Amino acid sequence: MTTIFDDLLATNKVCAASYDGAGLSRTPARHLAIVTCMDTRIDPIGQLGLKRGDAHILRNAGGRVNDDALRSLVLSVQLLGVTAIAVIGHTDCATAKITNESVRATLIEKGVDPGVVTDLDVHPVGDQQQAIRDDLALLASSPLLPHDLALAGFIFDVETGELEPVSS
Amino acid sequence: MTTIFDDLLATNKVCAASYDGAGLSRTPARHLAIVTCMDTRIDPIGQLGLKRGDAHILRNAGGRVNDDALRSLVLSVQLLGVTAIAVIGHTDCATAKITNESVRATLIEKGVDPGVVTDLDVHPVGDQQQAIRDDLALLASSPLLPHDLALAGFIFDVETGELEPVSS
Repeated sequence: MTTIFDDLLATNKVCAASYDGAGLSRTPARHLAIVTCMDTRIDPIGQLGLKRGDAHILRNAGGRVNDDALRSLVLSVQLLGVTAIAVIGHTDCATAKITNESVRATLIEKGVDPGVVTDLDVHPVGDQQQAIRDDLALLASSPLLPHDLALAGFIFDVETGELEPVSS
Repeated sequence: MTTIFDDLLATNKVCAASYDGAGLSRTPARHLAIVTCMDTRIDPIGQLGLKRGDAHILRNAGGRVNDDALRSLVLSVQLLGVTAIAVIGHTDCATAKITNESVRATLIEKGVDPGVVTDLDVHPVGDQQQAIRDDLALLASSPLLPHDLALAGFIFDVETGELEPVSS
């Protein structure tokens, strides 16, 4: 039976024929890192006109600068030359429509042991503009990062494809 | 002065004119999630022939299924219909060339307070094939996920653009 992974491998062989990454550096050419959501409608490279080699791209549910994103950004900035970080949320984000309680209830309904969901924190986002401002403040004040980073926040509109800056 | 963020906004306006995401669902059309590295040379959508709307894409330094990736995948699988997960490492990964000790020393050289780096764990990857096998085993056994997920691991060659399956 053909699986989705067989499909991915077959398509990758076609894509590899026109691959343009040979010889590129692991240091981002534009000294840029982007933190954004895992959402299906987001293609950071395509919608920002970036080229392969330009930027580090970090993605998680909600596009949050949590402990793990900070771990990655420490490597980006301190080892790999990144000097600018954009945090990009988006409209219609699933993490803005859930609470920890609602997710725990769903998991239990689906048969997950109630004992393992008690402490589950899925990082729900209340006010997304404020969440991005909080994330930028966290980056600006982290003792693990220099204080002269260029930082900016945006919301990506999944219906129009347009970015709007988040005011400070 | 024009900043990199002004450039991104200007380019986004051009890209938005041909945006093809209106009306797409936040549920991945191919019920697929991809976990991969933040590396500059990786463009998961471009190199796998995916379309906007097809997949959740998670990225962090090393492309590891750590606690935060697991948080995101719980939402992907339990709330948003994902049934297949691909973990994709790559050749020439920075996280395979560092240790926690080397990163801590670099941070201190750069002026970071030694007191804040003592417990820093940047998740160095030793044997990348084994790391991916470990991550797949973690997904297969997580009490937060169902046990019938389709799981596969790959290494992306940054010089050729080709994916190689990781043997189990």
